[in-house]
Amino acid sequence: MPVIGIDLGATKLASALLDDDGAVIDRRQVELAGRGGDEVGGLVAEALAYHRSSGRRIGAIGVCVPGIAHQAAGTVWAPNIPGWDNFPLRRLLAEQAPSLPLAIDSDRACAILAESELGAARGARHAIFLAVGTGIGAGILVDGRVLRGVGDIAGAIGWMALDRPYTRAYDRCGCFESHASGAGIEQTARALLAGEPGHRGPLASTSPDRISAADVFSAAESGDPIAIRVLDQAIECWGMAIANLVSLFNPEVILLGGGVFGPAVRYLDRITAEARKWAQPISMRQATIRAARLGADAGLLGAGRLALRAARGDAADA
Amino acid sequence: MPVIGIDLGATKLASALLDDDGAVIDRRQVELAGRGGDEVGGLVAEALAYHRSSGRRIGAIGVCVPGIAHQAAGTVWAPNIPGWDNFPLRRLLAEQAPSLPLAIDSDRACAILAESELGAARGARHAIFLAVGTGIGAGILVDGRVLRGVGDIAGAIGWMALDRPYTRAYDRCGCFESHASGAGIEQTARALLAGEPGHRGPLASTSPDRISAADVFSAAESGDPIAIRVLDQAIECWGMAIANLVSLFNPEVILLGGGVFGPAVRYLDRITAEARKWAQPISMRQATIRAARLGADAGLLGAGRLALRAARGDAADA
Repeated sequence: MPVIGIDLGATKLASALLDDDGAVIDRRQVELAGRGGDEVGGLVAEALAYHRSSGRRIGAIGVCVPGIAHQAAGTVWAPNIPGWDNFPLRRLLAEQAPSLPLAIDSDRACAILAESELGAARGARHAIFLAVGTGIGAGILVDGRVLRGVGDIAGAIGWMALDRPYTRAYDRCGCFESHASGAGIEQTARALLAGEPGHRGPLASTSPDRISAADVFSAAESGDPIAIRVLDQAIECWGMAIANLVSLFNPEVILLGGGVFGPAVRYLDRITAEARKWAQPISMRQATIRAARLGADAGLLGAGRLALRAARGDAADA
Repeated sequence: MPVIGIDLGATKLASALLDDDGAVIDRRQVELAGRGGDEVGGLVAEALAYHRSSGRRIGAIGVCVPGIAHQAAGTVWAPNIPGWDNFPLRRLLAEQAPSLPLAIDSDRACAILAESELGAARGARHAIFLAVGTGIGAGILVDGRVLRGVGDIAGAIGWMALDRPYTRAYDRCGCFESHASGAGIEQTARALLAGEPGHRGPLASTSPDRISAADVFSAAESGDPIAIRVLDQAIECWGMAIANLVSLFNPEVILLGGGVFGPAVRYLDRITAEARKWAQPISMRQATIRAARLGADAGLLGAGRLALRAARGDAADA
């Protein structure tokens, strides 16, 4: 029986009717265009109504959200959607489709579910998706189940402590994130440039307050010594964080995804070599580190996997 | 129906008949006295035969081992028991008692199982036992299940990367362990004393190669500046490691146990304050950090819990 997958992002809402294998039958996308609160709720309801109007019997609904899905309350915290501090998404969907099994989970959880069933971690029951974009987070499968924790906020790896002593720079979003997220790379580059006003490398051709992580990657390729220092530090931190995941979880596979991987995939060998220094050596040999495969489709396909699990009555395993 | 719990340690074998609530009915202990290999296997078989001779019907057997319990193979790696690199413990016990459900797990797993059902983490389904003794390891419960990983070596937190850059001192047993285990505290104190040959503090009254972690704790209490520096660093590392567990697992409770906690429990407030600096702040508020309660009995009581879970057919949850 087909299912409906809904992927709510920070800027768009994608949805699909998917078959029993999780393949897309019919797909739809709308832009949020700055909308928030109940208006975004209305878009989700419209997407649901659209796919239900296909005339097919539907088995379940799965929803991927850009933030935290509180399982007991059925509410969603999505920091980039105005008014979604505590949005009652489950109630809204249950009103639209009271009889359908329903599962809601975070983008990190959906990414690792999709990758473990259809992508670069296929078949793995112990698998981790390390998402490095503007921020950093992790989706973690433990024996096939999503690790959620007591408050549904497990996987907040951007806060990982990797470098003593503590400094105020870590206050806002944590040590790992301030060194090695997209935003962290930009800020580190700006700080180093500010300390070297005579810098002449490629990075100097961009106004410091407009430097993007992409600029840092391309400047490093062109040999800019400041860009190289910034990325050397990020590579060290990615390797250490991966090592810590390996030692703690003893996973089969760790996938690197998000906007920064992307360009940072070219450093996969160096990142893996750094991880190998620090990690429990037997666990390290049992783990494969590789790039994620599903890219921007991971959320929608993961929502489909959530729905298929819910249709099987596997909510606890989703 | 009663069950049998067997706690194999590095120096002794404790065993008990336990009732349905996991309380000890009859208990027995023998010293290993340097024995290894099949001789230790024989002691386990003797303990089993002793408790089965009680005349009661037995529901299941649980065994706690000082190392790694490979679940698929049924073998045990126990570094402190000669000849137990790959000991076929499940086969031996299944030959003795073919019809009885049987579960074998590591001391770390048994400690968190026992503490979550009978001790300081009672009722918690997301709970972590951080064991700091000569080495460092963690027993981790995720939604009531022991986290094992693909090779049964999850929880190897002694290898956690906490301090850039990598140095050769971390080669043998990892960064966290070399700073903050009992052995790490001793070695750090020795290294600092070697660098200050004129040191006159209380630590100077012990020959450097005989300094124990207990000596460092008591010297710090007496104001020895080297001992204080060693423990300041250990407290920082314990706090960082706890923060990383909080951010990744979003647990209800983290318990501090093992020989070093013990004396280090007096620093619980400082350790918690250090963790609070680094951890994801919402997760930190949801977590309680406290001392473990069951002490040396955790292994035997945990073996009892393993047996009770096995008797219920819950092997996958154990």
